[in-house]
Amino acid sequence: MSEHVVTVRPRYGEVDSMGVVYHARYLEYFDVGRTEWMRAAGLPYAGLEQRGFRLAVVDVGVRYLRGARYDQPLRLHTRVAEVGGATVTFTYELRAGDDVLATGHTRLGCLDTSNRPARLPPDARAALARGMSASLPPSETP
Amino acid sequence: MSEHVVTVRPRYGEVDSMGVVYHARYLEYFDVGRTEWMRAAGLPYAGLEQRGFRLAVVDVGVRYLRGARYDQPLRLHTRVAEVGGATVTFTYELRAGDDVLATGHTRLGCLDTSNRPARLPPDARAALARGMSASLPPSETP
Amino acid sequence: MSEHVVTVRPRYGEVDSMGVVYHARYLEYFDVGRTEWMRAAGLPYAGLEQRGFRLAVVDVGVRYLRGARYDQPLRLHTRVAEVGGATVTFTYELRAGDDVLATGHTRLGCLDTSNRPARLPPDARAALARGMSASLPPSETP
Amino acid sequence: MSEHVVTVRPRYGEVDSMGVVYHARYLEYFDVGRTEWMRAAGLPYAGLEQRGFRLAVVDVGVRYLRGARYDQPLRLHTRVAEVGGATVTFTYELRAGDDVLATGHTRLGCLDTSNRPARLPPDARAALARGMSASLPPSETP
Repeated sequence: MSEHVVTVRPRYGEVDSMGVVYHARYLEYFDVGRTEWMRAAGLPYAGLEQRGFRLAVVDVGVRYLRGARYDQPLRLHTRVAEVGGATVTFTYELRAGDDVLATGHTRLGCLDTSNRPARLPPDARAALARGMSASLPPSETP
Repeated sequence: MSEHVVTVRPRYGEVDSMGVVYHARYLEYFDVGRTEWMRAAGLPYAGLEQRGFRLAVVDVGVRYLRGARYDQPLRLHTRVAEVGGATVTFTYELRAGDDVLATGHTRLGCLDTSNRPARLPPDARAALARGMSASLPPSETP
Repeated sequence: MSEHVVTVRPRYGEVDSMGVVYHARYLEYFDVGRTEWMRAAGLPYAGLEQRGFRLAVVDVGVRYLRGARYDQPLRLHTRVAEVGGATVTFTYELRAGDDVLATGHTRLGCLDTSNRPARLPPDARAALARGMSASLPPSETP
Repeated sequence: MSEHVVTVRPRYGEVDSMGVVYHARYLEYFDVGRTEWMRAAGLPYAGLEQRGFRLAVVDVGVRYLRGARYDQPLRLHTRVAEVGGATVTFTYELRAGDDVLATGHTRLGCLDTSNRPARLPPDARAALARGMSASLPPSETP
């Protein structure tokens, strides 16, 4: 299964008074991870929205193993774990050097512009499926 | 000139590693202040949007005097300082007890649904002008 | 099992371009829910931190059922589901009227000031356990 | 006067229901701008904190000219406009192509670890002053 890697540097306001990144911010990093995964797979999310489709988060889970610090260069590894007719599941691993800081997943459901469930358009489904197995280039500029 | 007062308690994730509320969060508090001011003035912002008008921030300024801490009950005092044909300026004072923690302002411009500048609808302009001088009740539930 | 209820009104900046609250913000609401639960249980979190203990999130999960809108009054129901020697698990249900918008949980681990795992102090553990079964008054001012 | 340029791509959760970046997020981008400016000037902010100094925001101002969209590559131009004995003022210009989206400034005051005003250490003041006039390389990985 293929993964995509992007560098994330925690911003000052993302760190809480314990001196580590606040746990809710990881979901925002994961969002960056799947934006970059989709771009690398030839299916930029903004383009999908312009065509009248949206991917809404229906389920998330995160396990926090170690804290992340301000300005520390992190590597976010993103994969697609499952593609259904109307859903897609991304998984994430956030690392600092060899340490895994957190793992997580988000399951997204496809909606139309009226926010009703919709099937993924065939080309999008195909691009997601290809990206599951193909090798994606890393993003250097988020 | 009339003011409206609402209580804000800083959330854990709003406090940075200096142990005080991160400076960008104050703009989110000010947004709560004007949402509550407008509700108290009989002009709820959500209703204005449903009628096809938006208030976009065109200018902000904040002076930070003392830090605000997690879970500390703060009092946010909001006023309307100026109402024009297509703009409105709110001013804010954030206090903890007798201490002023910050002061600020936001100037907003009225837009239509195509994000083009538009004149404030007459009833909205009248409600803003009345609220400048009338006494508004405090909000107890944000 | 006892629950605590607090009203949350989504702020303008918490809503994304789909017109519903961005999924990461729910974790911030849950944080408000457990802050208020702990206050109602006689164990304010800020006091626990002043005594040198911290509760760090080790695991979260959220299921999103319906979107939440700007300024819509929501009721967040918070419970403690499990208290261990060094951990506590909160569960949440976010409702708009009779609709359940989301459910979730956070498991927290107790740390000392050096961010090392620590046992919960006995009085804190007792207060959490009591709150699991006792009736807590609702919070009216967040 | 020298400037530093970094690319920022708005994240999905930073865009509000008007379809443009929420105004408070600009202050977080400006924070990224000064983090990168300081790194390029040989004075990484994290290192300054480790030596017991903090730069707290005392004053901000932003003028918003055009909206920024999700995933749009923006160029943030950061300069130092003034260096005093205990303060430093950064100015910012956020651009999309040739369009200026926003301009702003932040004035920061130096604090010691007890959050009391302190003079900038001489080497920091010198690095800030040098960076005002020297040419800084752009950051490619934020």
